[in-house]
Amino acid sequence: MTDSVGIVKTEYAEFDIELQLESGRLLGPITLAYETYGRLDPAKSNAVLVCHAWTGDAHAAGRHTAEDRKPGWWDDMIGPGKVLDTERYFVICSNVIGSCKGSTGPTSVNPRTEKPYNLSFPVIMVRDMVRAQKLLIDHLGLDSLLCVIGGSMGAMQALEWGIHYPQMVRSIIPIAGTGRTSPMAIALNALARQAIFNDPMWKKGNYKTEHPPSDGLALARAVGHISFLSDASMHLKFGRRFSARDGMFDFFGQFEVERYLEYNGGSFVERFDTNSFLYLAKALDLYDVAWNFDGLEDALSHLRCPSLWFAFSSDWLYTPDQPEQIVKTLQALGKPASYHLVQSDYGHDSFLVEPEKFTHLIVEFLDRLQ
Amino acid sequence: MTDSVGIVKTEYAEFDIELQLESGRLLGPITLAYETYGRLDPAKSNAVLVCHAWTGDAHAAGRHTAEDRKPGWWDDMIGPGKVLDTERYFVICSNVIGSCKGSTGPTSVNPRTEKPYNLSFPVIMVRDMVRAQKLLIDHLGLDSLLCVIGGSMGAMQALEWGIHYPQMVRSIIPIAGTGRTSPMAIALNALARQAIFNDPMWKKGNYKTEHPPSDGLALARAVGHISFLSDASMHLKFGRRFSARDGMFDFFGQFEVERYLEYNGGSFVERFDTNSFLYLAKALDLYDVAWNFDGLEDALSHLRCPSLWFAFSSDWLYTPDQPEQIVKTLQALGKPASYHLVQSDYGHDSFLVEPEKFTHLIVEFLDRLQ
Repeated sequence: MTDSVGIVKTEYAEFDIELQLESGRLLGPITLAYETYGRLDPAKSNAVLVCHAWTGDAHAAGRHTAEDRKPGWWDDMIGPGKVLDTERYFVICSNVIGSCKGSTGPTSVNPRTEKPYNLSFPVIMVRDMVRAQKLLIDHLGLDSLLCVIGGSMGAMQALEWGIHYPQMVRSIIPIAGTGRTSPMAIALNALARQAIFNDPMWKKGNYKTEHPPSDGLALARAVGHISFLSDASMHLKFGRRFSARDGMFDFFGQFEVERYLEYNGGSFVERFDTNSFLYLAKALDLYDVAWNFDGLEDALSHLRCPSLWFAFSSDWLYTPDQPEQIVKTLQALGKPASYHLVQSDYGHDSFLVEPEKFTHLIVEFLDRLQ
Repeated sequence: MTDSVGIVKTEYAEFDIELQLESGRLLGPITLAYETYGRLDPAKSNAVLVCHAWTGDAHAAGRHTAEDRKPGWWDDMIGPGKVLDTERYFVICSNVIGSCKGSTGPTSVNPRTEKPYNLSFPVIMVRDMVRAQKLLIDHLGLDSLLCVIGGSMGAMQALEWGIHYPQMVRSIIPIAGTGRTSPMAIALNALARQAIFNDPMWKKGNYKTEHPPSDGLALARAVGHISFLSDASMHLKFGRRFSARDGMFDFFGQFEVERYLEYNGGSFVERFDTNSFLYLAKALDLYDVAWNFDGLEDALSHLRCPSLWFAFSSDWLYTPDQPEQIVKTLQALGKPASYHLVQSDYGHDSFLVEPEKFTHLIVEFLDRLQ
């Protein structure tokens, strides 16, 4: 695999501070899990920060061991000669706070009680995630980021970076993002939450790690899965095929789309913590770029750098009109913002499924920056 | 209320037969709950059959007592001088088999065991519902129906009537319908099902009526509710307003859209049986007009009467392309089919929320028939 970053290792940075959150509460100490790929140039001018989505992690590229079945979640994009070319760029990806993938979150031990936070973990916003990431960027000795890029929740982080650290950020690329979460997206997350709350194993967040609310979390994940797909992609993938193992008139008989959702929900339980899922869902719901500003224009007026936006025609979760509104506002403010509506049938997940449809535009954009 | 049909009474017709279902199983005896409004003309030529949606019932118009807070579910449409003018038409509405609103369904007592059917009730298809309704129409001494009309699952029934009883049916009006349920709609129903299956109170369908799986059914209903609304209607109705009673950073704090879903799910539990909900969901999922035909064209070739179709621009459950495919096929077969795409922001529910946008077309259509 000449185009792979090879074997990589997750690093952990510890910050013995009390971070003031948007809610007014304090969180500390803070651990951030992160990985880096490529080398920082002597001028420290080639750092690209990759921000992950809801259930993502710091492991964006390469493999942890030679035996790993799968590489990092954005390995298609990151590596020698790839879109985020590690021969040219120093790529950083860190796990957000609130997650369960190495950074401080509800599964972490609260040093004051010596017990896991569970629901005593504070509600966080995307802005808080970015504020914590800033600690890491400082820790790495960087005073500028060539680009902050991410899809979905990663797009929100990219936009927050651009607005809150305009002196550091030289460009942002929000992909399949939104300026604020729609009531439809909130409603879908409400289903996911309720699925977990209904599970007696959840115990108001005080489940034991070895006995998570599996049924509830699997159903919650299935809600998410549906919202990441599209009518068209389900037609392509499943149509109306009925499971070959079931009788069509069995009460418990399943269409293939059902079996798929069930299987994926079940496998998710093995890799993600329920409380983290809930805290991150909450952060998504609360996301509004205009939070604590005098409206959208005021918020966006703080962005100084060029931005490159992508939306996907079949994305019904963060519908294209949402980033379009942001881009129009930016352009009205005289900011250099460009926007591409990518025709794809794969819904919100299009950015992961059909990267070849838009990544050449990212390469050109980054080329123009340097 | 001069435009009301006034006080009405649900009637019950009993059929001591064994109805052969599409699955091959037999169901009998069968009770059908129904109501009628207006008077049959001497030529028996003015009967209009109204078919209800998923959780509907036979009570389409008027009130059961003067104290009733609400009239029947389509009271806007049925009454003296209304679209289905009871001075002119003899209007019939019957509850489908599988439901819990008076017709034979999983809550009924199986005369062979003297216990409620629960999950021993057979899986039914929409075609079976129509076959049972046919018993009622015969029982009422009718040999023709001026029109069969309905929305959503009612539209499916209207189409089945037209295809399977072409000698009786003089017109059909399917509203917000589909020729076959899409994988997206099936996937949403799969969430609803799993929400119920996850509830320990469900007990594989053997819950006691007084202890239903309330949490599961409420969540299942919330899934349905979301699919009946649209992004636009949620923006209009809720926006991103946060509940005034909750703190924004409370872990259990809710947006208004969440509170609405929770409230409506809870109230639904009081009025609908869980197993019925599941059997009707299954019937919806299995719906395919081409079932047991040699494809769509073959199925539609049996329709003889004029049909009038309505779809709604923001309906993402039964997307407009679904009825459009049917209408195109009908037209290619030389059948008199007309189609109207109604611009409405209210999603699948538009047909109930904004009837004024299309009902004049129904009046004209019916006028031309007589």
